[in-house]
Amino acid sequence: MPDRPLPPLGTIGILGGGQLGRMLAMAAAELGFRTHIFCPEDNCPAAQVSNHVTIAAYDDEAALAEFATHVDVVTYEFENVPDATVTALEAHVPVRPGRKPLAVAQDRLDEKRFLNRIGVATAPFERIDNAAGISGAASATGLPAILKTRRMGYDGKGQTRIDPQADHEQAFSTIGNAPAILEGFVAFERELSIIIARGINGDVAAYDAAENEHRDHILWRSHVPGNIPADQSAAAKEIATSIAEALDYIGVMGVEFFALKDGSLMVNEIAPRVHNSGHWTQDACAISQFEQHIRAVAGWPLGDPARHSDAQMENLIGDEMEEWDLLAAEPDTHLHFYGKRQARPGRKMGHLTRLSQKSD
Amino acid sequence: MPDRPLPPLGTIGILGGGQLGRMLAMAAAELGFRTHIFCPEDNCPAAQVSNHVTIAAYDDEAALAEFATHVDVVTYEFENVPDATVTALEAHVPVRPGRKPLAVAQDRLDEKRFLNRIGVATAPFERIDNAAGISGAASATGLPAILKTRRMGYDGKGQTRIDPQADHEQAFSTIGNAPAILEGFVAFERELSIIIARGINGDVAAYDAAENEHRDHILWRSHVPGNIPADQSAAAKEIATSIAEALDYIGVMGVEFFALKDGSLMVNEIAPRVHNSGHWTQDACAISQFEQHIRAVAGWPLGDPARHSDAQMENLIGDEMEEWDLLAAEPDTHLHFYGKRQARPGRKMGHLTRLSQKSD
Repeated sequence: MPDRPLPPLGTIGILGGGQLGRMLAMAAAELGFRTHIFCPEDNCPAAQVSNHVTIAAYDDEAALAEFATHVDVVTYEFENVPDATVTALEAHVPVRPGRKPLAVAQDRLDEKRFLNRIGVATAPFERIDNAAGISGAASATGLPAILKTRRMGYDGKGQTRIDPQADHEQAFSTIGNAPAILEGFVAFERELSIIIARGINGDVAAYDAAENEHRDHILWRSHVPGNIPADQSAAAKEIATSIAEALDYIGVMGVEFFALKDGSLMVNEIAPRVHNSGHWTQDACAISQFEQHIRAVAGWPLGDPARHSDAQMENLIGDEMEEWDLLAAEPDTHLHFYGKRQARPGRKMGHLTRLSQKSD
Repeated sequence: MPDRPLPPLGTIGILGGGQLGRMLAMAAAELGFRTHIFCPEDNCPAAQVSNHVTIAAYDDEAALAEFATHVDVVTYEFENVPDATVTALEAHVPVRPGRKPLAVAQDRLDEKRFLNRIGVATAPFERIDNAAGISGAASATGLPAILKTRRMGYDGKGQTRIDPQADHEQAFSTIGNAPAILEGFVAFERELSIIIARGINGDVAAYDAAENEHRDHILWRSHVPGNIPADQSAAAKEIATSIAEALDYIGVMGVEFFALKDGSLMVNEIAPRVHNSGHWTQDACAISQFEQHIRAVAGWPLGDPARHSDAQMENLIGDEMEEWDLLAAEPDTHLHFYGKRQARPGRKMGHLTRLSQKSD
């Protein structure tokens, strides 16, 4: 499959079997594609709605090579796909969005350096290789600051706060003595995000900015439109576009921002995949972020990201799913449940979207 | 599973593996249900997006009994489910909408008698058991008329036109010498349909009426709103409601009408299932007919059938799918392809919906 669009009945391979893979697989099926999930766990949410599943470790080269013979293009639902996995697959089949976005998104240091290099502001940061480095770094970032592992952190994992009295040895141990960054505190007024898509032909389509609220470091709610000035929203789209272009991106990307009191924006992080803060697009837009991503990785033209309604998306985390019957009785609430058996604390079990008449 | 709503992770069994079963399975997955398809063909469209599939004939009692142990409730995507199949399943598990709607919808004579009995107008009809009966029937219905098999007809199959000069032996042979009805011609102004849902608690939710256009006896396009006077649309909803109530219906039902020049309505036929003329609800409504049906058969409250946009749905039949790349380039066209490998003439391969701003 070169740059020609993949016809319906073509097979899209998806690395990862969680809820994002599940919603990607359903969007692919709507367009007549077949799907093949590659994930290490049996009976994962995505496999339940897919044509085929390979259950194997991400470093199982034989399984990857076999998987590659059955698919026309590969995409992924998470940013921690090992580089060797991409290498093994790319020998046979295109992997989109591809290696460059993964490399940048997997390492907080590389990510921030990349962003600053293309002129995008971030929180102040310093490289930390050992506990002894924290003091010097702190004088550059100021305190309090957050010590974050460079790799494999998500939903607040691999982070700890550094106050002036902090024990640096203990803090570094808390994050597993792993290569890290120290990130200065940003006094932001709000958090927002942009879901942007870039097609194989370079076209870009951005959804309206969402205002996000977190609880316990996990996304709780996204509102569209948020309480976001029009020029800030436009600036966020512009920054997201410049990032997508600098990465030769193909697919949907989430970009999280801090909006400061002076109205300026800093990028918090980028996610080279469909993003939780874009789930509202399923119910409020002509084309959802999931269909948009499938269109892009299949080499199709992008769809219209226009929004027909205002939306509020809310995650259902852990035992919040137990209220499914009350939610089901709200006649205009759109429910999306992920088919997960175990409701552990902090685990995303589903989400809901409430629509209202478009206000802007 | 008695009358309590089925929790997410429950399993919905679906008889039939075509595109309606496929879209039902995807709607069920959105609500966190597992799905189990029962159909005679391997690699059917519905099985591609379902947790489990049983490939067996509808009269395979052992397979049905085994299937019943794996599901919490059974529904179906087609009206010709054999009565013995329902009997075999009902010994173990609820079958919804159930036996009564199937019995009525499977036999054109029973269907029309039932409708007339509850005060719903139909085209004039006469029972035909042999070729010799056609002359006498024709004097009651008038000519031209349509000879239709009582059972197993769809998309114009099992029908032939009777003109004054017709050879009755030959006509009866054309429809397979099967029990039939002779149906008088109706000079209708337009064809319309109502998609209605009835919940386990007796609540009813009707979608707005669609105006339908057929080509070669197959649905081609549905428009909402059609060119339908408001009082006619309201009358159609009222008739559909009375039918659903008379059948103790649980689930989504399609009711096709002829609208006559004097403004009155006749029911053409009822479909005890989701219906092609309701596909526009996927893109233009808060809750699609597929989710609505799943909600009803799972014993959930019905969702809101409100329409946020005007819609035009068009079927993609046979080789019309070949234009998928042109359709994919229309940024605001919603595409739905069914994953079928063979594009035979008359075969429904997909559909599309174009939305526009709500005009009413």
